Amino acid sequence: MDTATICWDAETESIRYIDQTELPARFVVVSCSSVARLAEAIVRLEIRGAPALGAAGGYGVALAACRSDRKGDAFFEDVQSNAELLRRTRPTAVNLGWGIDRVLKACIDAGSPASAREAAVREAEAIAREDSLLCRRIGGHGALLLPDSCTVLTHCNAGALACVEWGTALGVIRSAVAAGKDIRVVACETRPLNQGSRLTAWELSRDGIDVRVVPDSSAAHLMRQGLIDAVIVGADRICRDAVFNKIGTYMHAVCAKHHNIPFYVAAPYSTFDNDALEDEIVIEERGRAELASCGGRLLLPEGVAVINPAFDATPLSLITGIITENGVIYPE
Amino acid sequence: MDTATICWDAETESIRYIDQTELPARFVVVSCSSVARLAEAIVRLEIRGAPALGAAGGYGVALAACRSDRKGDAFFEDVQSNAELLRRTRPTAVNLGWGIDRVLKACIDAGSPASAREAAVREAEAIAREDSLLCRRIGGHGALLLPDSCTVLTHCNAGALACVEWGTALGVIRSAVAAGKDIRVVACETRPLNQGSRLTAWELSRDGIDVRVVPDSSAAHLMRQGLIDAVIVGADRICRDAVFNKIGTYMHAVCAKHHNIPFYVAAPYSTFDNDALEDEIVIEERGRAELASCGGRLLLPEGVAVINPAFDATPLSLITGIITENGVIYPE
Repeated sequence: MDTATICWDAETESIRYIDQTELPARFVVVSCSSVARLAEAIVRLEIRGAPALGAAGGYGVALAACRSDRKGDAFFEDVQSNAELLRRTRPTAVNLGWGIDRVLKACIDAGSPASAREAAVREAEAIAREDSLLCRRIGGHGALLLPDSCTVLTHCNAGALACVEWGTALGVIRSAVAAGKDIRVVACETRPLNQGSRLTAWELSRDGIDVRVVPDSSAAHLMRQGLIDAVIVGADRICRDAVFNKIGTYMHAVCAKHHNIPFYVAAPYSTFDNDALEDEIVIEERGRAELASCGGRLLLPEGVAVINPAFDATPLSLITGIITENGVIYPE
Repeated sequence: MDTATICWDAETESIRYIDQTELPARFVVVSCSSVARLAEAIVRLEIRGAPALGAAGGYGVALAACRSDRKGDAFFEDVQSNAELLRRTRPTAVNLGWGIDRVLKACIDAGSPASAREAAVREAEAIAREDSLLCRRIGGHGALLLPDSCTVLTHCNAGALACVEWGTALGVIRSAVAAGKDIRVVACETRPLNQGSRLTAWELSRDGIDVRVVPDSSAAHLMRQGLIDAVIVGADRICRDAVFNKIGTYMHAVCAKHHNIPFYVAAPYSTFDNDALEDEIVIEERGRAELASCGGRLLLPEGVAVINPAFDATPLSLITGIITENGVIYPE
C-alpha cells in the first residue's frame, strides 16, 4: 500500500483519508476540514477499523483544536464538545475513544489555545506513526507462528485500510510474505458490508499477495476439507474475558476449534480494555438498510425486520493466541 | 402461498413457474414451452430447491414428450436426449434426476408416443401432487418436535418456493403455526444469492409468520445469546453418511452442536441417496459473478478469484433428526 489510510495535511490543516465505501470501484482520497464531516465519515464507515479509528479520533481532536477560533476556556470547551461528538459515532471500538483521550490530554496539558493546537497535531501524528510501527511489530511476532507454506483464513478487513498502514491481521500476512513464506489468503466476504471482498481482496491483490474470496458461510466447509491452516482476525475491543470483533468472528472461532485449527487475534495494546468484562460492552446494532438492498437490487421484502449486530464477542477460551506488538499472549 | 411454485398448464401444454430470481421486487409467473428454456431456468435458479427440481424434472420430461413430433423409436430417443439435457443442469440435487427418471420410465412403459405423452403428464402431475402431501406430512411430524413457543433458525429457502407448495423446513414451521404454536423465525440471508432474505422472508411474511433476517455469520452469535431454540434446514441430497445442503448448513450444524441446540433436516424420501457415500458426490462450484457484484455494485476487485461451492456436506453425527414424510429418523 503506497497511500496511508489516514494522515494529516499540515498545509491545509485538514485530514486526508481513503474513502473505503468507494472501494474497490474507485480509489478516492477525501480532504476533511470539519469534525462534523469526520463524524459522518466514521458513521458511514468511510474510515473504519479499530487502529484507524484511533488515528481518526486523534486527528479529529487536532482538527477541532486547529479550527476553533474561541479564546481561553471557551476554546477548550469547544474542543471537548467536538471530541464527545466524535466519541459517540461508534460505541464498540475502544481505539476511537483511546485516540480522542490521548490527544485531548495533550491539548489540555498544553495550557494556551496556540500551544494546544500544536500539541494536538504533534500527539495525533505520534499516534499514527506509532501505529505503523506497532503493526510491523505485530506482523513480526505473528509471522513466526505461521508455517512456511500455508493458507490463512481472515474475516473482514484488519489490514492497512483498518490501520494507518501495514495492518494487524493482514500485517501478520504481509510480514510472513516479506519473510519469504508462501502464504495464501482466503478472505471471507464479510456481510453485510463486504469489507472482505471489497477491502481485504483489494489491498492484498494490490500487494501481489495470493487471495481468494469466499462466502462467510463456507469457512467451516473449507476447514473440514483441510484447506485452512490458520485463522487470523483483528479486534475492535479486547476485554478481560472476550474479544469483540466483526460479526462472524465468533462463528469462525467455534468452527476453528471444532477442526483443531489455530485461531489468532492480531491487535495492538490500544485495543485492550482490561477494566471491562464482556457483559458491560454494548454491541452496536446497525440499520436494516445494510441487509435490505445492495447496489440497486432489492434483497428483502418490505416490512421484514432484521437483526444486524456489527460485532460479536468471542470468549478467550476459543482463541489460540493474541498477537500484540510485545509478543503473543496465550489466553489459557 | 396461494400460487404453486411450479405446475402444468394442460391447455397450452407448458410449464408455469414462479421466477425466483425476480423476488422479492417482482412476482413473475413464467410460461415455459421448451426443454431448452426449462434447462436455462434451472441453471439460472429461476426454479430451485430440491423437491421443486424433482417436479421440474418430471414436468420437463412431460414437456419433451408433448412437444416432440417424432415417430416410433425417434420419439423416445428425442425424449431421452431432452431428459439428459435437463439432468446435466444441476449435479448435486438428487431430486432432479429422480423426477426425470420416474417420468421417463412412465413414458417408456407406455409404448406408443401418444400414450407416452399422456402417461408422462399424468406421472409428472402425480409427483407434484405427492410433493404437496409429503410436505404436509413432514410438517406434521416436525411440528411435534418444536416447543409451543420458540425461535427457529433456518438457512436458504426450504419453503413453498423450494417445493410445489408448503415446504419442507418451512413446512414444519407452517404446520407448527397451524397447530397454534408461537413460532418466530430467524432467516439467514444465505449468500451469495440471498435465498433467505429474498425468498424465505418473502413467503413467510406473506403468510403472516414472524420472520427476521440476519447475516449468515451472525447465527453463532445469536445461538450464544440464547436466542435460537432450534435449527431446521432442508436438504439437496442425503447420503449414507452426510446431508448435502446449501453452503453454510455445515457451519450452522457445528455451531448448533457447540451450543447444544437441536439441528433438524426436513426432507422427503426422494432426497435420500442410500447407495452413495459423501465422497462420491460432486459439489457444484458456481461462478465468480455471484460474489463479484450485486445490483450493479462492484464488490470484488478485478482479477481476484473466488471459491464458491453451492453446497456443503454435514456429517450425520451433527444432525439431531431428519424429518421425513414417514416420521423422524435419529441418525445416532
